[in-house]
Amino acid sequence: MIPGPVPVLPRIREAMSKPMIFHRGDEFGTMYGEIVALLRTVFQTRNDPFVLSGSGTCAMEAAIGNLVDKDTNIVCIANGKFGERFADIAGRYTEQVKPLNTTWGGSIDLETVKDALESNNPDVVTMVHNETSTGILNPAREVGKLVKKHDAIFVLDCVTTIGGDEAPVDDLGADVAIVGSQKCLGAPPGMSAISVSEAAWSSIREKQTNGPFYMDLEAYKKSYGKNQTPYTPAVPLFFALREALEVIKEEGMERRIKRHRILSKAARAAATGLGLNLFPELNEVSNYSNTVTAINIPPGLTDVQLKGGMKKRGIIVAGGQAELKGKIFRIASMGNITDKDMLKTVQALEEVLQEAGAIKTAGDGLEAAKTVFAEL
Amino acid sequence: MIPGPVPVLPRIREAMSKPMIFHRGDEFGTMYGEIVALLRTVFQTRNDPFVLSGSGTCAMEAAIGNLVDKDTNIVCIANGKFGERFADIAGRYTEQVKPLNTTWGGSIDLETVKDALESNNPDVVTMVHNETSTGILNPAREVGKLVKKHDAIFVLDCVTTIGGDEAPVDDLGADVAIVGSQKCLGAPPGMSAISVSEAAWSSIREKQTNGPFYMDLEAYKKSYGKNQTPYTPAVPLFFALREALEVIKEEGMERRIKRHRILSKAARAAATGLGLNLFPELNEVSNYSNTVTAINIPPGLTDVQLKGGMKKRGIIVAGGQAELKGKIFRIASMGNITDKDMLKTVQALEEVLQEAGAIKTAGDGLEAAKTVFAEL
Repeated sequence: MIPGPVPVLPRIREAMSKPMIFHRGDEFGTMYGEIVALLRTVFQTRNDPFVLSGSGTCAMEAAIGNLVDKDTNIVCIANGKFGERFADIAGRYTEQVKPLNTTWGGSIDLETVKDALESNNPDVVTMVHNETSTGILNPAREVGKLVKKHDAIFVLDCVTTIGGDEAPVDDLGADVAIVGSQKCLGAPPGMSAISVSEAAWSSIREKQTNGPFYMDLEAYKKSYGKNQTPYTPAVPLFFALREALEVIKEEGMERRIKRHRILSKAARAAATGLGLNLFPELNEVSNYSNTVTAINIPPGLTDVQLKGGMKKRGIIVAGGQAELKGKIFRIASMGNITDKDMLKTVQALEEVLQEAGAIKTAGDGLEAAKTVFAEL
Repeated sequence: MIPGPVPVLPRIREAMSKPMIFHRGDEFGTMYGEIVALLRTVFQTRNDPFVLSGSGTCAMEAAIGNLVDKDTNIVCIANGKFGERFADIAGRYTEQVKPLNTTWGGSIDLETVKDALESNNPDVVTMVHNETSTGILNPAREVGKLVKKHDAIFVLDCVTTIGGDEAPVDDLGADVAIVGSQKCLGAPPGMSAISVSEAAWSSIREKQTNGPFYMDLEAYKKSYGKNQTPYTPAVPLFFALREALEVIKEEGMERRIKRHRILSKAARAAATGLGLNLFPELNEVSNYSNTVTAINIPPGLTDVQLKGGMKKRGIIVAGGQAELKGKIFRIASMGNITDKDMLKTVQALEEVLQEAGAIKTAGDGLEAAKTVFAEL
């Protein structure tokens, strides 16, 4: 139940054991074309998403490395680990990084963003749609509008929304959007995809210097014209990604998003029912994540006890990262997780909390979750 | 029979269909440790090889991006496509790239190398051990000695030697050596590994600016201390790589290298027996590749006819790349290819050549190959 890599359905795993195919042949080309068409649907974009043989971090760097020159002015909006990672990456390409950091778990304040855009007049603005480290859904549409007013390129990390939550990248005003394979798409780890708008292509072409060779988006675009990748792709992961996207197509995006939302709602209801506090602080434009729920660890037990107790019961939950280590734990509802998985998780959590004396009676969490699932 | 991605044994492919494991857990850590230990044997190095979730090109860029600053002086020795790729990549990091290009298929001349090192006094020198695009084995040991005399860092691309041919990276004087998963190691495509010597670490630490975030070798080193990778790894490809390395261990490196050498010798003998000309021009310090054989396409048929005729008979061979397109074809003997595979290939080649009227009688190629296999 960790926020990626998620468990992978047997049919998706088995797709990887097929014999290899030549990546310059027709069979690969057809598969790549199918993957791009399916990705376009989950990205809700008119642009072509390219598939990178590398993790979500590779796609984040593809975005930055292709858009950012040594004098590019970039504002990196952040309220958690992955938002801050954009600033770390950008710092390798330009000296003009303007980090706009909010406390981890705090909400993005639109007035602050507006001021930062006015005073910095950036070329590029980055933000994470769903901050996996804190369980908060950031106001992408509202920030997208502000960025467009300043005629800047908006890079949106949708690593833990696309394929699970509503993330219509064109509508949100995201010029560059990225996703990882091992989250809501339900595929194995090791791949990512990136979509690039016309405005972003213009910026890329205007750039004075080239970014990394391995992540050169113009090389990807050129090869895509031949249904190929510029360098040897991770063929088995392509097999798996196609199968994972077929699973999504069969479920239907609308039902899939509803399932993710209800699963997260159940996780939140269970936590609240058990008297636990959700971690993120919401303002009027923010929401709890629909793919990962961050909960404060209650007094009476440690992070290690909580995770260890869960593991003994067959459930792996995530702790907090960096400054949140020991303070929160996280339950994901990404990919092909079911209501049964969530109920087992809540039951294990009740047992662990009761054993530690952190709650008096068990059952309130399960009851709250079941009430939510009745909506399904 | 192409020079990678190679066919992958069922047991290696099936390893990928196992349930995912958490990449921050003990099971992954143990596996990563095992992979590194096995890689150390095939690299013949005292250093730790790191595994990258990206192709050989990703590893080439990891080498350059971590060693090369904007003023770094780098000599890129090349006699084919992959040698030249180093210069392309280096051009993204420094303006001081000194390409030392020999004709594709020509041999590296040590006097020319010596002069280039003396006149340029480089910080870094790159070369490809086995030039896959032309079927030539470059004199790594001799060049390594010259590079060391100049106290420069020697980056050696062993993408198509390590795991198949003799490539003792420490003995060859390679400070940084790289390998791809989908060549002689017999694993699926999408991964690579890189080893870094103490001298290279010093250079990396002295560097003023950071290279790409995704390929940051210091981050890899730090994470390796915890048996982890800095970013989410391609877990199924790690499963496959471990299995592929187990296959190598079972065969034994000595036998494996002998098999690769005899297979290539048979390919060369068959070509010569059929009256075809081998493509590379050898000098006294160069050798024919022991993992891929490049042959001139004889008059009487085109590249497309040759490859198409072979494909109809179930055998895929590679054509020439870039300036060699239409001029040569290539038969690989990488990974877990057997003598039977090679004999089938030679037989198909004879049929195709006879059909096109390029040879009068069939059988001479097969006979020559069989004579070589008698040595096994």
